[in-house]
Amino acid sequence: MKFKSPPVNSISLDFLTEFCISLEKLENNRGCRGVIFTSAIPTVFSSGLDITEMCGKSTERYAEFWRAVQETWLKLYGSNMVTVAAVNGSSPAGGCLLALSCDYRIMAENPKFSIGLNEAQLGIVAPFWFKDTFVNVVGHRVAERSLQLGSLHSAPEAHRIGLVDELVPEEKLQDKAAAVMAQWLALPDHARQLTKSMMRKSVLDRLVAHREEDIQNFVSFITKESIQKSLRMYMEMLKKKKS
Amino acid sequence: MKFKSPPVNSISLDFLTEFCISLEKLENNRGCRGVIFTSAIPTVFSSGLDITEMCGKSTERYAEFWRAVQETWLKLYGSNMVTVAAVNGSSPAGGCLLALSCDYRIMAENPKFSIGLNEAQLGIVAPFWFKDTFVNVVGHRVAERSLQLGSLHSAPEAHRIGLVDELVPEEKLQDKAAAVMAQWLALPDHARQLTKSMMRKSVLDRLVAHREEDIQNFVSFITKESIQKSLRMYMEMLKKKKS
Amino acid sequence: MKFKSPPVNSISLDFLTEFCISLEKLENNRGCRGVIFTSAIPTVFSSGLDITEMCGKSTERYAEFWRAVQETWLKLYGSNMVTVAAVNGSSPAGGCLLALSCDYRIMAENPKFSIGLNEAQLGIVAPFWFKDTFVNVVGHRVAERSLQLGSLHSAPEAHRIGLVDELVPEEKLQDKAAAVMAQWLALPDHARQLTKSMMRKSVLDRLVAHREEDIQNFVSFITKESIQKSLRMYMEMLKKKKS
Repeated sequence: MKFKSPPVNSISLDFLTEFCISLEKLENNRGCRGVIFTSAIPTVFSSGLDITEMCGKSTERYAEFWRAVQETWLKLYGSNMVTVAAVNGSSPAGGCLLALSCDYRIMAENPKFSIGLNEAQLGIVAPFWFKDTFVNVVGHRVAERSLQLGSLHSAPEAHRIGLVDELVPEEKLQDKAAAVMAQWLALPDHARQLTKSMMRKSVLDRLVAHREEDIQNFVSFITKESIQKSLRMYMEMLKKKKS
Repeated sequence: MKFKSPPVNSISLDFLTEFCISLEKLENNRGCRGVIFTSAIPTVFSSGLDITEMCGKSTERYAEFWRAVQETWLKLYGSNMVTVAAVNGSSPAGGCLLALSCDYRIMAENPKFSIGLNEAQLGIVAPFWFKDTFVNVVGHRVAERSLQLGSLHSAPEAHRIGLVDELVPEEKLQDKAAAVMAQWLALPDHARQLTKSMMRKSVLDRLVAHREEDIQNFVSFITKESIQKSLRMYMEMLKKKKS
Repeated sequence: MKFKSPPVNSISLDFLTEFCISLEKLENNRGCRGVIFTSAIPTVFSSGLDITEMCGKSTERYAEFWRAVQETWLKLYGSNMVTVAAVNGSSPAGGCLLALSCDYRIMAENPKFSIGLNEAQLGIVAPFWFKDTFVNVVGHRVAERSLQLGSLHSAPEAHRIGLVDELVPEEKLQDKAAAVMAQWLALPDHARQLTKSMMRKSVLDRLVAHREEDIQNFVSFITKESIQKSLRMYMEMLKKKKS
């Protein structure tokens, strides 16, 4: 599955809706046993949640957006398929979450590419299920520091802390992802799926149990004037950068 | 304690019964403060649960077998003694669990020896308490991947991921195990035992709380025709290999 | 904040009371966003809980002491400020806990300095919240072994197992701590604080829920004749060492 939402694969409500529909189709297609996620846009895997979805919208729209973010994660983290992220560009925040939710992460070893849950840099807080997913991958100490600092890790550093499983030269990334997929698909599906579900169930269940509360938290946080202001400033900065 | 159940130290019901009786005797012997587990059979520490115990038997027998597997783990993981595994050969599946349940694992650095919870390779699923024990040793990310792939790790790789604590040349393994044991026995028993119990209690309690359910799961899984068929095929393959 | 309680920064009831008052003042001072903890005494960061507080006192006094130990940890581990430990000397037991409770640990790379939760060496058991804090930093396997053996890790070893985040030459320790603090303070406070609280809440809540029980445990353990005897012997040994 190739993300192609120019200019930077921001995760908008449209992106999420399409992602969920595509994933569900593949999930229900018995011929499809695995998915490789990568980007059709050079230098960016996914730039994370679309900030325009978090600025100047109605409460209902915020809730709808957040429910779609949750749904995407529940489907991806809980997928029965083998999921491999071929991270061929930078991947901050929500983009990092997509990669973290896969079974295996391969990243182009370009030191300009970075990845991390950098929400704290924008003055916002990664929700508990982002945190749970992150802790499952890098452990508590690394997650605590990285989340507090909102760190974006260069590819080599991401590899060193275990955020990505493997680095390969950019031109070999897709081949490597295909080889890894072949290795995982050599296993009998049923046992692999039950094992994956056993490993991830408690973290998935936790969001399911607190889903509405989590939406309320997001909406009440994002509608604060101070947060809206800092997001508007951040968007202005991005616009200036571009021009 | 030397495993000697030729040809490959398969964990049969007899093996488990004898193991539990021996362990309990040592546990109740105040003169015995620690046990080193190793194999009397060259190249194999333990080949794991005996597949003949899982094929073509009655429901009652499956339940009896599984209860004995649980009992062995509860006794070993919860032992008050210092437990050191001197892994002098390959140690797949249930053999790996025995090693994981000790306080310390030393492995002969022979790269032909491998260790891991490879259940997924046979189309079966390691139960939750195998998983919990594994996660406590190697962490969530490594456990998730290794269990899904049913990986058997070579000795050097097992050391790198923390599955074993130390590698030594084969001829020095028993001496090293004795030296480690002496180091652990230098500590006052009472504080060490309370500390060990504090670290392992939640995982032990989890099986105790779900023991009957876990037996039911095993029996209903193992009696499925598809599973029986794949185990029979695996046994045929092993027989052909031998001849 | 500089610990200065000669000769070895033992954590007495006075030390704890002063520590808590100072920390609370800083916490309520909106001008103060971070604290660096270090020692004014060469070669010792803190020698841990004062053994004279655990010997020959009344039950009420033991309970008061333990409540103060709990209070200190609850305040420090749950602090809204950025907390950096500049570990400029050895730091056993309770001294190690102070360091573990900070956001970041820098240690002088002097191989003579050691750090660890060595309670088991004295025949006592680190309470569950010491253990939880330790597991959050170094993971389950390392914590289990280190706590059972009551290990004191040299600075290089402490770095290798993740107990401290960074080693620097002794003369650069304070500068490095200031630089790290500046890096952490560059983040917006509110998001960082919420993130920290999300990471630590479950472990803090656990002590809050079991606080009285934990005091009872401490008092009944410490008043045992066998424990009193071994602590008196340990104190005699320390006195002889000094003279």
